Amino acid sequence: MSPPLTHSLRVRFAECDPQGIVFNARYLEYFDVAMTEIWREALGPYEQATAEAGVDLVVAEAGIRYRDSLRFDDVFDLRATVRRIGTTSMVTAIAVLRDEVVVAEGELRHVFVGREDARPTPIPPAVRAAFEPYLEAGAAPDPA
Amino acid sequence: MSPPLTHSLRVRFAECDPQGIVFNARYLEYFDVAMTEIWREALGPYEQATAEAGVDLVVAEAGIRYRDSLRFDDVFDLRATVRRIGTTSMVTAIAVLRDEVVVAEGELRHVFVGREDARPTPIPPAVRAAFEPYLEAGAAPDPA
Amino acid sequence: MSPPLTHSLRVRFAECDPQGIVFNARYLEYFDVAMTEIWREALGPYEQATAEAGVDLVVAEAGIRYRDSLRFDDVFDLRATVRRIGTTSMVTAIAVLRDEVVVAEGELRHVFVGREDARPTPIPPAVRAAFEPYLEAGAAPDPA
Amino acid sequence: MSPPLTHSLRVRFAECDPQGIVFNARYLEYFDVAMTEIWREALGPYEQATAEAGVDLVVAEAGIRYRDSLRFDDVFDLRATVRRIGTTSMVTAIAVLRDEVVVAEGELRHVFVGREDARPTPIPPAVRAAFEPYLEAGAAPDPA
Repeated sequence: MSPPLTHSLRVRFAECDPQGIVFNARYLEYFDVAMTEIWREALGPYEQATAEAGVDLVVAEAGIRYRDSLRFDDVFDLRATVRRIGTTSMVTAIAVLRDEVVVAEGELRHVFVGREDARPTPIPPAVRAAFEPYLEAGAAPDPA
Repeated sequence: MSPPLTHSLRVRFAECDPQGIVFNARYLEYFDVAMTEIWREALGPYEQATAEAGVDLVVAEAGIRYRDSLRFDDVFDLRATVRRIGTTSMVTAIAVLRDEVVVAEGELRHVFVGREDARPTPIPPAVRAAFEPYLEAGAAPDPA
Repeated sequence: MSPPLTHSLRVRFAECDPQGIVFNARYLEYFDVAMTEIWREALGPYEQATAEAGVDLVVAEAGIRYRDSLRFDDVFDLRATVRRIGTTSMVTAIAVLRDEVVVAEGELRHVFVGREDARPTPIPPAVRAAFEPYLEAGAAPDPA
Repeated sequence: MSPPLTHSLRVRFAECDPQGIVFNARYLEYFDVAMTEIWREALGPYEQATAEAGVDLVVAEAGIRYRDSLRFDDVFDLRATVRRIGTTSMVTAIAVLRDEVVVAEGELRHVFVGREDARPTPIPPAVRAAFEPYLEAGAAPDPA
């Protein structure tokens, strides 16, 4: 078991809207940073790791619940775990926290595809093995 | 009954990522445009209409399923209906279509809040009445 | 002589910052839309036109003077002319206007590069001919 | 004399375009981060420091020369100095460097305005004093 991926960022002025808070779409940009960093921890730099594994990833589904808001210059943490590793897709659960309080939480479902044909392809065993330590407690590692 | 709100846009180069497709977070920017336009159709310009109603809206939840992708310069339609009008929150269902094919679909749940205290407040009757014609067939107009 | 390219847009909420105005960087996204549209008018859809001409374009320089600001839901015009067509680069002058008042103005210098080697390459005659009608009055059409 | 403000960032996937490089407008988002950080170093957190000084800042002019490009996952430095402190405006020179090589460089001219009336106002002495150590060698600290 690994602890969840944790990565800190600071809110940029350009990310905030006239309500003075981070615009809702920007959270998916943060989620994407969390993906980049969990790949770095598990398997190395994203582009190199996916190339070596012979796969590419496409986002199939995204969901977010906004609990509170972030403001300009706030420092916050991204926390990511793996909720499910299927045959060809993986669900990552991501939380945005400020001072340990959840500001937003959600999940991204990515489908693994071939680099040539862009068609769904089984998650390579080495990738599966690298992400299994990030599985949430109680989550099933086996493909469904 | 109104037909769904429909609004056309063209993909900007800046909205696309190194995969050559619209980046996943950008769809929430498109969804927000759909919200602006359904307000315009139902009640007038967003800022004026919310001010007159004495409310503001915050996004509480967002979900998207990506079925296909959009590329630079593609023309596409946003299509929005109302899925549910509750006591203090409203769920809008939004689809992104290219040539009548669904590229992505999802929903936004907005909570109505007071303009002073930012606390949840009942949806004003005039706002409710204006959005009821956009309710999806089979959806219940009554607050739950 | 052609009239300047003119293209209308409406400000999206996501483009505005906590000052309630369009964030400064977003103007370069608008400028890029103006480039896409002047290409469409002069030579056809950007990707097809550049592919047929065997070139690609990279931005070498950008400048903007902000005279006023745009707010959420404002409708504005992009107006573009060509300031200079050199041997391998072209300068486009772009203004952002609301009700015929200049909100911002600036220029983009693009360098034409080979699609294979990404090295500066002379502007193809057909491209040059297509953009010369957009040259500002008094601007020299000849390469320098 | 202070050394230039230096702040490191890593390129996010969402910041890159179909050419595989950081989209030109994104550099102005980076420049804005550099402004936030030079304020932090010189006077403290931006919002608090501007509030205490009784001023707000608006961007009047921006310029960028693109020398090279940044790619997804590149780590780069922002380096900022003050080029000129006038009566009501300040010019900040910002460079984007990767491995000490300049990828892009430019400047932002900000005008100081009153927080109530949004009209140009003299730069407060304490703000002037805090930024003078960042003046480029040879730059004149006196208002012109």
